[in-house]
Amino acid sequence: MTMATVAKYDMFELEMEAGIWSGQTGKERALLEDIAVFWRVEDGVEQERVAVSAFRKNRDYYAARFLPMCEGEWRYEIRTPGETVRGGFLCEKARDGVHGPVTTDGDRFRYADGARYIPFGTTCYAWTHQKKELQEETLETLKHSCFNKIRMLVFPKFMPYNQEDPEVFPFEQREDGSWDVTATMDAYWENLDLRIARLGELGVEADLILFHPYDRWGFAHLTQEDSLFYVKYMIARYAAYRNLWWSLANEYEMLYDKSMDDWDAYGELLAKKDPYHHLISVHDILNPYPKRDWMTHASIQSGDVHRVGLWRERYGLPVIEDEFGYEGNLEFDWGNLSAFDFVDRLWTVVCRGGFGTHGETFHRDDEVLWWGKGGKLYGQSERRMAFLKDLLYSLPGEGHGFIAKNRDPNQEQEDGGARPEDLAFGRLLERTPEENKGGLISMQPMLLAAKDWRLRYFGRTCPYIMRDELPEGIWKAEIINVWEMTRETLADGLSGKVGLRLPAKPGMAVLLTRM
Amino acid sequence: MTMATVAKYDMFELEMEAGIWSGQTGKERALLEDIAVFWRVEDGVEQERVAVSAFRKNRDYYAARFLPMCEGEWRYEIRTPGETVRGGFLCEKARDGVHGPVTTDGDRFRYADGARYIPFGTTCYAWTHQKKELQEETLETLKHSCFNKIRMLVFPKFMPYNQEDPEVFPFEQREDGSWDVTATMDAYWENLDLRIARLGELGVEADLILFHPYDRWGFAHLTQEDSLFYVKYMIARYAAYRNLWWSLANEYEMLYDKSMDDWDAYGELLAKKDPYHHLISVHDILNPYPKRDWMTHASIQSGDVHRVGLWRERYGLPVIEDEFGYEGNLEFDWGNLSAFDFVDRLWTVVCRGGFGTHGETFHRDDEVLWWGKGGKLYGQSERRMAFLKDLLYSLPGEGHGFIAKNRDPNQEQEDGGARPEDLAFGRLLERTPEENKGGLISMQPMLLAAKDWRLRYFGRTCPYIMRDELPEGIWKAEIINVWEMTRETLADGLSGKVGLRLPAKPGMAVLLTRM
Repeated sequence: MTMATVAKYDMFELEMEAGIWSGQTGKERALLEDIAVFWRVEDGVEQERVAVSAFRKNRDYYAARFLPMCEGEWRYEIRTPGETVRGGFLCEKARDGVHGPVTTDGDRFRYADGARYIPFGTTCYAWTHQKKELQEETLETLKHSCFNKIRMLVFPKFMPYNQEDPEVFPFEQREDGSWDVTATMDAYWENLDLRIARLGELGVEADLILFHPYDRWGFAHLTQEDSLFYVKYMIARYAAYRNLWWSLANEYEMLYDKSMDDWDAYGELLAKKDPYHHLISVHDILNPYPKRDWMTHASIQSGDVHRVGLWRERYGLPVIEDEFGYEGNLEFDWGNLSAFDFVDRLWTVVCRGGFGTHGETFHRDDEVLWWGKGGKLYGQSERRMAFLKDLLYSLPGEGHGFIAKNRDPNQEQEDGGARPEDLAFGRLLERTPEENKGGLISMQPMLLAAKDWRLRYFGRTCPYIMRDELPEGIWKAEIINVWEMTRETLADGLSGKVGLRLPAKPGMAVLLTRM
Repeated sequence: MTMATVAKYDMFELEMEAGIWSGQTGKERALLEDIAVFWRVEDGVEQERVAVSAFRKNRDYYAARFLPMCEGEWRYEIRTPGETVRGGFLCEKARDGVHGPVTTDGDRFRYADGARYIPFGTTCYAWTHQKKELQEETLETLKHSCFNKIRMLVFPKFMPYNQEDPEVFPFEQREDGSWDVTATMDAYWENLDLRIARLGELGVEADLILFHPYDRWGFAHLTQEDSLFYVKYMIARYAAYRNLWWSLANEYEMLYDKSMDDWDAYGELLAKKDPYHHLISVHDILNPYPKRDWMTHASIQSGDVHRVGLWRERYGLPVIEDEFGYEGNLEFDWGNLSAFDFVDRLWTVVCRGGFGTHGETFHRDDEVLWWGKGGKLYGQSERRMAFLKDLLYSLPGEGHGFIAKNRDPNQEQEDGGARPEDLAFGRLLERTPEENKGGLISMQPMLLAAKDWRLRYFGRTCPYIMRDELPEGIWKAEIINVWEMTRETLADGLSGKVGLRLPAKPGMAVLLTRM
């Protein structure tokens, strides 16, 4: 017998004829919990066993999906009515360019195989609910963009510029108008399968949003029991995609039916049942979700981008500003940033040690806005995002942001050596209520630094000089114009205390690299 | 006997030969508390009596100063050693252009005689400690500017760009280096007298800062007893200037010797002893001073300008953003705003219902920066401030800012009629901790409105359309470019629900006026 083969980080899917389970009703019509077990065999010894649920894939088949994270021989057993199906496959090395799921490393990210991953995501909430041609156009745009993550909804969206019903709904509707979450609509989920797979081939992480409030159909009002069932179904169906991230919500506070306990239950369920530990976050409208053990990173909505430094400290996790405003011209202030403002906020977020997400909202009479439906990009921020992405990937090692607690905001120098609590700024920070810390932090330098480089961004400030005290070694300084995307040498052969003359205009950054 | 005459709101000063008090020591060398009483006589009936302290003016004279706020016959008595001096004067109508002290009216200001006053102040902390020629140059610059208020320190300043000792100190120094606050140095105070008078003639309010932390001489470390004595001396000497405002501190939190009780004691003393009830405020670095009964308005330092709307609600007093950043190019982030940013913040403050203060900090090798020492202006923001000032004064009546609590940030329309707590935004506002409200408020319209006009500013946002529902009547819409200082008609004959096409770029305002 020749064993099936699958590349590491590619999905292994086992289809089973639906007829076997034709008698199922209720929840088991859609989901067969933990009926499969997968394990690796190394030198004849069984490794840890992973339980997997099967789900109704379509009229003809149920499926069990598994994502092999290690090369070698894998085996499985599936309990079906009447018999236990046994089998195995050989997991070979990953295909070129495939690095596995993204995971965290302190307050940074990386792929499972250790390769670098720096999120430069975008937002197309309802792109999978549009006509096929438009979905294809969205994929084509993504292919030629810098984006390596996309925020997208499972459920359809109702909001300005998003007024239509989708062609198909995720579940069957009962006569009373409620949704039967056990009666999944094949076309809806098969399309989502296809779209997540296509994103994976493009190297784009699908940051999949499980719940959201912009709804007129009732998906925001599922009971907690139905919601939990739906989450289990999502794990069974989507966890085996390597490019999947779980986002519990878009704007969790706006889902007034759900309590914090409800949210925690989803987070705990995902952390426990997802065998591959995909990333888990919750997006807010105003109040970033409190830190939880199941949370892998903070997904924040706020235009107050300087706070990234504080959130990084508060969470001790990577911080993605998933919504700091979109480039566009809408009448709503979440969707009418100038391109310069967008780029400025992005650099601020990054140089404060976080990551930023793109969105575009230019009014169109046909209502096809990138942020909602995908399609084409019309703005000026994506290529500037690409410039920053290329810059960061070109530098050795991951940078880290920090807050210089011992810097006196009114003097030239850091007060070296003294205890923070003895210094004016340290004392201020202690005495300052949370609500005012944004202002305090905004006056501290924006600096992303690694061992051999320091990237300092000046934002809208216009200093005529940058002073710094360089670590040991000889350094080179380049000035970067974040809008013009230019990079020019200011000086090299630098060491110790330096003073670099700057052009005193907005949108400047200085890159210091060790020579 | 011909009675002396003095115009209403002009200072009446009575000089008394110092010889009478030659035996005085200690505190009474500088200040003779409550030795004078002034009262008005109307139809032969004495009106309320006002107690006034005399102070040592110079080597030759003590003086008692009084500011008549009503026309008519005034009388006084002064207790001197050996005799009670009696006299009187006739207070005639105010000179042209003189309107008396500025007072408050709800969250707006006005002059004592009811004339309009909208603060458009600037900042020259240490201008009176510079050489005479430079002080004259500062006055010349003020004369040709739009500024009608100036923030200035009593005590000299030590900070970057302010390194020199003043030519003369306010008090004599004891052998141990401490200051004898009862031994006032004539030249110091006579110069301050002259400067405040000159400002008065220019129509500029002197927002006089009593304490500040940027000190290497010890004035920030006076004992509380000496501090209170100094405040009493200041009342005796300066309360009779009509153009005087009391600012207890620049950055009160940075004066680590002083407790909140100490600050309250100064505020209470001023409120009680200043017969003319000049305006009283305290300037912060990060934490706006809590509301107090003695406080007449909020004097705030914060770059988070959208919070003006919240502060206005919290204080129920006028809010002046006395420091939201200075136009300039310093290495310090409090002093390197672009001119556009300065103008944008000013409009934001004003259209959120507050008032904003100017400052300019362009690096110069001679260290003569307007913000510290006065001199000349080099920036581009003053004339744009003048443009806004002229605009506001040209409109009928005072505008008021407001926060639309019932506006859903994600939809086109206000949810008319419903109770705020029933609406998404109202519920959000309730649940949002103070630290995050800035973000919430920043998404609400910036609107300054009076009965017959509405001024809406769009800041850095770039909407392609402005929707509004106009009050009864027929309206005209003009678009204002706050940087170019242009004003063009968009449409007239407007009524009811309107949608106005905008150019979708930063720095736009729309003025709606009832036709």
